[in-house]
Amino acid sequence: MVFRKLVSVDEARRILEKSLKPKPAGTEFIPLSEAHDRVIATDVASPLNIPPFNRSTVDGYAVKAADTFGADEDHAVALKLAGRVNVGEKPRVRIVQRTTAEIVTGAPIPDGADAVVMVEHTSRKDDSVLVYQPAVLGENVMKAGSDIRKGEVMLKRGTVLSPFEIGVLAAVGFASVEVYGRPKVAIFSTGAEVVEPGKRLVEGKIFDINAHALSASVAQLGAEPLNMGIVRDEYDQMQAALKKALGMADVVITSGGVSVGPTDIIPKVLDKLGKPGVIVYGIAVRPGKPTTVAVIEDKPVFSLPGHPASALLIFHLFVRPVLLGMGGKKEEPQMKVKAVASERLFPARGRRTYITVTLKRGSSGRIVASPVPTGLSGAISTLAKAEGFTVLHESQQFVDKGQDIDVELFKPEFYYSLIGVKERQ
Amino acid sequence: MVFRKLVSVDEARRILEKSLKPKPAGTEFIPLSEAHDRVIATDVASPLNIPPFNRSTVDGYAVKAADTFGADEDHAVALKLAGRVNVGEKPRVRIVQRTTAEIVTGAPIPDGADAVVMVEHTSRKDDSVLVYQPAVLGENVMKAGSDIRKGEVMLKRGTVLSPFEIGVLAAVGFASVEVYGRPKVAIFSTGAEVVEPGKRLVEGKIFDINAHALSASVAQLGAEPLNMGIVRDEYDQMQAALKKALGMADVVITSGGVSVGPTDIIPKVLDKLGKPGVIVYGIAVRPGKPTTVAVIEDKPVFSLPGHPASALLIFHLFVRPVLLGMGGKKEEPQMKVKAVASERLFPARGRRTYITVTLKRGSSGRIVASPVPTGLSGAISTLAKAEGFTVLHESQQFVDKGQDIDVELFKPEFYYSLIGVKERQ
Repeated sequence: MVFRKLVSVDEARRILEKSLKPKPAGTEFIPLSEAHDRVIATDVASPLNIPPFNRSTVDGYAVKAADTFGADEDHAVALKLAGRVNVGEKPRVRIVQRTTAEIVTGAPIPDGADAVVMVEHTSRKDDSVLVYQPAVLGENVMKAGSDIRKGEVMLKRGTVLSPFEIGVLAAVGFASVEVYGRPKVAIFSTGAEVVEPGKRLVEGKIFDINAHALSASVAQLGAEPLNMGIVRDEYDQMQAALKKALGMADVVITSGGVSVGPTDIIPKVLDKLGKPGVIVYGIAVRPGKPTTVAVIEDKPVFSLPGHPASALLIFHLFVRPVLLGMGGKKEEPQMKVKAVASERLFPARGRRTYITVTLKRGSSGRIVASPVPTGLSGAISTLAKAEGFTVLHESQQFVDKGQDIDVELFKPEFYYSLIGVKERQ
Repeated sequence: MVFRKLVSVDEARRILEKSLKPKPAGTEFIPLSEAHDRVIATDVASPLNIPPFNRSTVDGYAVKAADTFGADEDHAVALKLAGRVNVGEKPRVRIVQRTTAEIVTGAPIPDGADAVVMVEHTSRKDDSVLVYQPAVLGENVMKAGSDIRKGEVMLKRGTVLSPFEIGVLAAVGFASVEVYGRPKVAIFSTGAEVVEPGKRLVEGKIFDINAHALSASVAQLGAEPLNMGIVRDEYDQMQAALKKALGMADVVITSGGVSVGPTDIIPKVLDKLGKPGVIVYGIAVRPGKPTTVAVIEDKPVFSLPGHPASALLIFHLFVRPVLLGMGGKKEEPQMKVKAVASERLFPARGRRTYITVTLKRGSSGRIVASPVPTGLSGAISTLAKAEGFTVLHESQQFVDKGQDIDVELFKPEFYYSLIGVKERQ
């Protein structure tokens, strides 16, 4: 392992992208009832026309349009009633010249008919139907295949399934769908000081935050977290844990342990486990500098800092795009708002700096962003109260009080509370 | 049952809100690993201080700040090294005047010390530590309780759990959390023409779309869909199905069956099942007019139209707010964009009209909304291609071509593709 100097955020991304092409691990067939928010793994073509037959879009009478030409309020055309067509049945009637059949919405158009007259424009007299308005060819008929044509690609590979797409799959008769597998992500925390929540806290220890916050972050992206608990910061235990994790999962995330330096054992273990080994060892970013990224036989291992705010930021910047790619999802940019800085903001020298902020509407009507301290203290409560972050680039000297900044929002709800949209329609 | 005339969308909402106060059905304790996106059912106060003890935020030496006063590059203060404090351990050393202990980031501050000098501002010489910079009281010390104070309400009832809040719960040692139960929603389709996807389609039949699209819509809101399949549009079968559904679920959704009129059996069955029975019977809305809403012993039953586009719109307008309320969630407004109408848009006379649109960036740089036909034909494929909808109010005559309209987006992704945000930071 070469002890490199810190690389920039962009350089770390380039190294990761060169070493790892995140691809979906595989596909699986699942029932439609479990398909919400999953990603289709193949283009899906329709095996049939939708609707499968010409359908009436109204209640009325199926006719030959030509028979109704010239009809008006004063000169009704009389047609002989030859039968009735119900929904869900094959029509048992055939429309010949000057005959008609009663038909309901959604029922198949009987052979010989080419239009439907709405019931409102007719009257009944014994076996005759009086038509008071001419029908044009195809009127009130939904043609077979007009919604979906047989053979048409309805849904593209990579589409995230919402209720609409699930409706489309049901429409053509699919009870199951081939989707990308959910990437499995093994997560563990390290450090002599951390204790599993729910256990007794002895003096000098703190409860483990990261494995839980990171598991939820993994679940949020549709991947499957495997929480492996706490692993002691000791060579043999760490090696065993990493081997086990690489055997079970597509991605491994560790957090905590000592800072970047000669006593950090995780990079040493990783470099022995497989090729290419450690590819990034320290990033010029605040927070999150002591980050190690390795690739072991095409599986990424992210060793994140122990501070929750740092771990979650590095997850966002580096792990999230990999998990989205492995899940077959496109990376969507997060929602941003323009705000003014409440005070002068300084970047860490030579490091890209992410500053967590809270937002409120200022007296000028503009949105004001106030920094909240999360970095050094690792305070999780302030992170939970923060609404987003702003980025100061490496070359930037500072952002002045009152200057415009972009704030990327943690949760889209904040957008609405800021914009104050309330109207319901 | 009184056959009322159509009520407006607003009137239907008022009737529903008067007849039903959606409340969470109950609460349950779940492990943190399953808590993502669930809703906390109680205010949560912290049982302990976070951090639980004064912690060092750096690697360095724990000192009495007063001992370092006057130190500078040329006049180092020499302190006697009395020991070392590791993370996760109760300190075995006590700092008395002119002594110090080595300390690492995150370790507890030993008794007697009130500041930490960073290792960068020191040097070691045998048993002595030379300090080249004075420390101020509390420097590099994160005080016990400075993140979360014991007894402080950290999270409010009704908070949706994201990775941050799950981190807060882990921080104070909770391995599980009390959340609102997920409302159970029984869903079935009716109609002689519908067949379950996966089964053989005989002539005159179509595959059932609604039960599947509605189940996904229910899942999207965090509620639990119980798909009960297809029920024949016949009094006894319908009565048995509705009784069973009301016994199993908190909410019942049916769709399809015949249109509003004397042959519609669902309202008749509902009025016999319990009080108050049918409260809305037909709504002045397009699409979605043949909608029936009933309340049976405090459980709502929504009988939606058979056309998928109509069923999903009425779900959005009437069922969604009820399910959110029962899940303990606030109703958040959907994301909207301003667009110009590609053509003149007409409302249905006297009915609030929802027009599905696709969006694209026009030559002027503005977003242009083009209507897509989904209403009468019930076409699901066009709905899957649509990007949002616009609303024409009952009193509106029309929207002219080129006029500004608000478009509510079906999926927030469309927002980004429109805005064209691509930059990654």
